[in-house]
Amino acid sequence: MDSALDWNKLDTYAKQWIKEAGNIIRNSFSSQLMIQTKTSPDDLVTNMDHEIEQFFIERITKNFPGHRILGEEGVGDNVQTLVGIVWIIDPIDGTMNFVHQQRNFAISIGIYENGVGKIGLIFDVVSGDLYHAQKGQGAFLNDVSLPKLKNVKLEEAVIGINATWVTENKRIDPTKLAPLIKRVRGTRSYGSAAIELAYVAAGRLDAYITMRLSPWDFAAGLVLIEEVGGLVTTIEGKSLKLLEQNSVFASNASFHDEVVDTYVLGKNE
Amino acid sequence: MDSALDWNKLDTYAKQWIKEAGNIIRNSFSSQLMIQTKTSPDDLVTNMDHEIEQFFIERITKNFPGHRILGEEGVGDNVQTLVGIVWIIDPIDGTMNFVHQQRNFAISIGIYENGVGKIGLIFDVVSGDLYHAQKGQGAFLNDVSLPKLKNVKLEEAVIGINATWVTENKRIDPTKLAPLIKRVRGTRSYGSAAIELAYVAAGRLDAYITMRLSPWDFAAGLVLIEEVGGLVTTIEGKSLKLLEQNSVFASNASFHDEVVDTYVLGKNE
Repeated sequence: MDSALDWNKLDTYAKQWIKEAGNIIRNSFSSQLMIQTKTSPDDLVTNMDHEIEQFFIERITKNFPGHRILGEEGVGDNVQTLVGIVWIIDPIDGTMNFVHQQRNFAISIGIYENGVGKIGLIFDVVSGDLYHAQKGQGAFLNDVSLPKLKNVKLEEAVIGINATWVTENKRIDPTKLAPLIKRVRGTRSYGSAAIELAYVAAGRLDAYITMRLSPWDFAAGLVLIEEVGGLVTTIEGKSLKLLEQNSVFASNASFHDEVVDTYVLGKNE
Repeated sequence: MDSALDWNKLDTYAKQWIKEAGNIIRNSFSSQLMIQTKTSPDDLVTNMDHEIEQFFIERITKNFPGHRILGEEGVGDNVQTLVGIVWIIDPIDGTMNFVHQQRNFAISIGIYENGVGKIGLIFDVVSGDLYHAQKGQGAFLNDVSLPKLKNVKLEEAVIGINATWVTENKRIDPTKLAPLIKRVRGTRSYGSAAIELAYVAAGRLDAYITMRLSPWDFAAGLVLIEEVGGLVTTIEGKSLKLLEQNSVFASNASFHDEVVDTYVLGKNE
């Protein structure tokens, strides 16, 4: 069998399913109001997370029985290695936005082969924007090809970072990244790692920094960003591990090393 | 003349113009933006800002010759008092988003009579969402009535605040608001005061805090938020002044005093 054809087939299925899943979520917003009196918002998101993950599990196991699934809800396979083809899925990335805003959340799907990202799909469900990439074939927003990222000076960069990481927290000394915030042109925080990574791929953010993501939060974004020439590493500049939590620093390649060296490792002090 | 009818006429014109102006901006994205810097790289001003302000000035002076205009670009009237009817206009709120993202910016129009907000319009140009209110008649998102804000505990609140205000800056001791960030459920930052105020009105954010806004940044948002039972004050809980810059704390009324007292004034320490 032609292996290039396989990946295109996979890509076609994945895109079709992600849009179907998005419709299920959107349609739920009308019925949600009726059951809200009985159910807490946290239960609603949990139910929808399970339903959407189950949606993908059923379709993947039926159509691609050899593939494995790594996902947040833990109802997929117990994936301990990255051998073969693994679908890394977050059914609803940005659950707080889902509950509070009914927007600004995404379905994130990365498809990896022996640990190498081959397909990345991020579907901003309410806006309808599908960010997609196949390794080596460029990244797209819907039908529009996303250009390679242009060089940007740090002083002119807009970066995604939550205020949490520059106030007292368990994961990083808040004084480390505070000078970075002073130096850049501006910061944003959207509350969905998948959307923020998609924004980096689309050049709307020049970087995104966060201290703890699970593989399903960044698996798709990594494929997208690498396709436009960006870099995705831990905040120490190391490769991300796909079977554990990581800090994540995704950025325009032009200042990636500079941020790691100056603000995280303190090399230039 | 029936004065109620006057305000409806004003409202109809303003809504029509804000949508026309939005079309001009959207159509401009194909042509090259000519970006100028005013005083600093953070203060991006585009030709589009000037063009849109001029669009409103021409229509207001022709149709409502007695009205005055207060706006960012300073090409309107030199407004020193709030007597009579004053249109307070930001042609593009969120200029950095406009330049970097071509989205997540808004046209903001507040129409005030003797210093009292009567009409508030915020048009999220790219999403097409128009948030609108007439004083005493409720607030709307497009054709949908926005409900009164429900009580929210601070621990369950999602608030809009930029990381700048909890790192070293010229306007507030960063340690003041840092404990608030730890206490709330989450924070967001969208880079457009008008959109963040509209989000408060729509219940998508439970609060928005910033240290410096001009009247044209908040004039419309204030009308919208008051219509849904929220409060908009300085961070010290005082009334906003419409002829100068202010800190702004817009929130759900249920925890407004608590935040001012505990985190800004330090009363409960």
